[in-house]
Amino acid sequence: VDDLTLSDYVKRSKDRILGSLVDWLTIPSISADPAHAGDVGASAEFCADLLRSAGIQNVETLSAGGVPAVYGDWLGAGSMAPTVLVYGHHDVQPVDPLDEWTSPPFEPVVEGGRLLARGASDDKGQVMMQIEAARGLLGALGHLPVNLKFLIEGEEEVGSPHLDELLDKDRGRLAADVIVVSDSNMLAPDLPTTTISTRGLVAFDVTIRTAKSDLHSGIWGGTVPNAALVAARLAASLHDSDHRVTVPGFYQRVRELTRQEAQSLADTPFDEIEFCRQAGVKELVGEAGRSPYERTGTRPTAEVVGLHSGYGGPGMKTIVPATANLKIAARLVPEQSTEEVEASFCQWLSEQAPSYAEVSVKTVGGVAPLLTPIDHPAVRILCEAMENVWGKKPLFTRSGGSGPEEGLGRILEAPVIFLGVGLPEDNYHAPNERLELEQLWKGITAAGELVLGLRAVKDN
Amino acid sequence: VDDLTLSDYVKRSKDRILGSLVDWLTIPSISADPAHAGDVGASAEFCADLLRSAGIQNVETLSAGGVPAVYGDWLGAGSMAPTVLVYGHHDVQPVDPLDEWTSPPFEPVVEGGRLLARGASDDKGQVMMQIEAARGLLGALGHLPVNLKFLIEGEEEVGSPHLDELLDKDRGRLAADVIVVSDSNMLAPDLPTTTISTRGLVAFDVTIRTAKSDLHSGIWGGTVPNAALVAARLAASLHDSDHRVTVPGFYQRVRELTRQEAQSLADTPFDEIEFCRQAGVKELVGEAGRSPYERTGTRPTAEVVGLHSGYGGPGMKTIVPATANLKIAARLVPEQSTEEVEASFCQWLSEQAPSYAEVSVKTVGGVAPLLTPIDHPAVRILCEAMENVWGKKPLFTRSGGSGPEEGLGRILEAPVIFLGVGLPEDNYHAPNERLELEQLWKGITAAGELVLGLRAVKDN
Repeated sequence: VDDLTLSDYVKRSKDRILGSLVDWLTIPSISADPAHAGDVGASAEFCADLLRSAGIQNVETLSAGGVPAVYGDWLGAGSMAPTVLVYGHHDVQPVDPLDEWTSPPFEPVVEGGRLLARGASDDKGQVMMQIEAARGLLGALGHLPVNLKFLIEGEEEVGSPHLDELLDKDRGRLAADVIVVSDSNMLAPDLPTTTISTRGLVAFDVTIRTAKSDLHSGIWGGTVPNAALVAARLAASLHDSDHRVTVPGFYQRVRELTRQEAQSLADTPFDEIEFCRQAGVKELVGEAGRSPYERTGTRPTAEVVGLHSGYGGPGMKTIVPATANLKIAARLVPEQSTEEVEASFCQWLSEQAPSYAEVSVKTVGGVAPLLTPIDHPAVRILCEAMENVWGKKPLFTRSGGSGPEEGLGRILEAPVIFLGVGLPEDNYHAPNERLELEQLWKGITAAGELVLGLRAVKDN
Repeated sequence: VDDLTLSDYVKRSKDRILGSLVDWLTIPSISADPAHAGDVGASAEFCADLLRSAGIQNVETLSAGGVPAVYGDWLGAGSMAPTVLVYGHHDVQPVDPLDEWTSPPFEPVVEGGRLLARGASDDKGQVMMQIEAARGLLGALGHLPVNLKFLIEGEEEVGSPHLDELLDKDRGRLAADVIVVSDSNMLAPDLPTTTISTRGLVAFDVTIRTAKSDLHSGIWGGTVPNAALVAARLAASLHDSDHRVTVPGFYQRVRELTRQEAQSLADTPFDEIEFCRQAGVKELVGEAGRSPYERTGTRPTAEVVGLHSGYGGPGMKTIVPATANLKIAARLVPEQSTEEVEASFCQWLSEQAPSYAEVSVKTVGGVAPLLTPIDHPAVRILCEAMENVWGKKPLFTRSGGSGPEEGLGRILEAPVIFLGVGLPEDNYHAPNERLELEQLWKGITAAGELVLGLRAVKDN
């Protein structure tokens, strides 16, 4: 079995694979909407059938109180062979605003080599890619050189609230030497890239009170504290004029990039006009002396995600607001810890808060940053597989987001590598989500090559 | 007719006056609530009947598109005598939160010498005071030494939206040499005070946009502009560390107090602990080097009355907000003009707004500040009447609020003087509004004395 065998398999199977993916995409498995709970269940069943038909065994649904994840494995390589766990998800994002879709989100259509549907790229298409690679190899070889496990989650789009618990509970069955995640993208079809980190996340819900109730701005205005102003000053003092976070100790654990990491980032092409257009902004703003990719991938941030105080309706009300709510979300990079950042933030807040205000803070969530060790043999094997298929050595990129990957790596104690074939223009989470079919076909070959290559991961 | 005659009249009439006021207070004339439009009309009729029965003539309702105001006059003093216009209002504030009332707001009860009901002090009780003074004088003398006009508005509690138009339209009929407003308070029952100014008001509704839509804080956070932060920085930069407004030119027209004004303010007793308790705040905050009464009465302010951006619900959402709304209300003092302050604010805003944000501003309202010239003979006559009744020369206070008085003085081109007998603990606009009956009885005598004294206002 080699490249040719796999790409030949893909060529012969395109119609069947596309038909099967289209069927799956008609199921509106929106995990955020309780009205679609039945659909998420149906999607899990569909996925389980796909795995079974591909030759994967022990297929069942796992759940830790939430929506079912689908598990399946093929363990015929024996205990001396490496074990690979493939992670993806079968739930999808909501579809609002529906009127911006050019075709109904759950009636997939192919246009210009692209498949349009909610979930096409995020993440049913990429899960299909992994299942079809296994099917192709098992069909050609009758066996695999590694033990292969699948964990296809059903709650990724709502923050994977039960995943850590599930991983913890089923740690033995899910154990692996390497975890392959297919739920990410590369920068362009001719620019293979692989993610090597995701940022951590810890958020703070700050409540401010300066008076028993809102006060009349005529009678009291000018001599009583104003909660909106306290919140605004806190938010405004969160960054200095270089857009660096002012919380003492915030950057303490952040290490500078290695030469190899910096070089890979510097080699990544960047089109500022296109980037601004995609974001819908006039200009980029961020930490001084850092490039946009450095800022989103390698640097921690503290964003004000909400600030609400006083009157917000039409016209005006003449009050001095008594309360304010300020929400701040910090994205962390290796080797920051959520606990240390939380402690630093709370300390900063208590120092910043004026004596006339009652300020309380609730910490929300807490996801640690993930960094794939780029000198791990699995990374080299992934790069070789991608280079064979796309013709170029992939660059390393860093995801600014915070996903379930950190929990996978931490709880299962294995490196996480990313084979993602989505593209920036795939409209993740937005109307008109799409999948470039050529990426899917190439991805199946690459995923198959990766499985073959990973047989050597234990020897390195 | 002298003090004794008037106070004897009050003594004889207490039961009747109280009974009549109680009847009026059972009418829930809440102008803010369209469901009570009929009640506001009934209250106007009740007021008209009161005026007629007191001997006031030409009673009718005036309206400029809104809820009816009640007009009445007694013009028997002849064209050589001065004309006095009494202003008050018969509409009342809403009653929420209803469960904090110790008795139903429209079922008046007398407890410990106080009448509890919505409108008891603001303003039906004070209007009753003026009508009963006229009734007492007309009963004793058969005539008055001045021409007396009443204008009792029905929309004061919703910002007098039609008053200026009404004044303008009926300028001839409403013409007066002095305007007496009874819709204010004194600092304590043993501390007679009279208001000599109200602040102006101009407000700004600022809209900020930094992106086409909210952005994912993982993917974009750290390198795109944040509308919440832009709003917070604008709000935070509105004052310097001395709590002075930073808008260039904001204080340009503000003149320092005269020696007499400053002395009167310095003589006004101030209990900071009680003041904080009434406001429900831990500490007072405001312009450095100014006392609380200076800040609320004699200094302009710019208060953030609302700031809303991004996610405000429970928990967290990981977005970079694309839009923000910032509402700022400025209170002005003589001789600031709303137009100049508006121009200064807009200039400041355009200079502060970063290039990556679209910032637009809508000016809301515009009330000029009012200052009664304290050397006007009407002020001396008012002070004598109050000293006769309360036994002390009244101090001059300045109201921080912005009322219809400015329009009265400006359009009718007459000085506005304030005979107000409310007290700070009367719970204006709050649950358990009340009127100290002793203040009402004294107020009737003082109002009668004032009418008698004002016969001399033209000669001075």
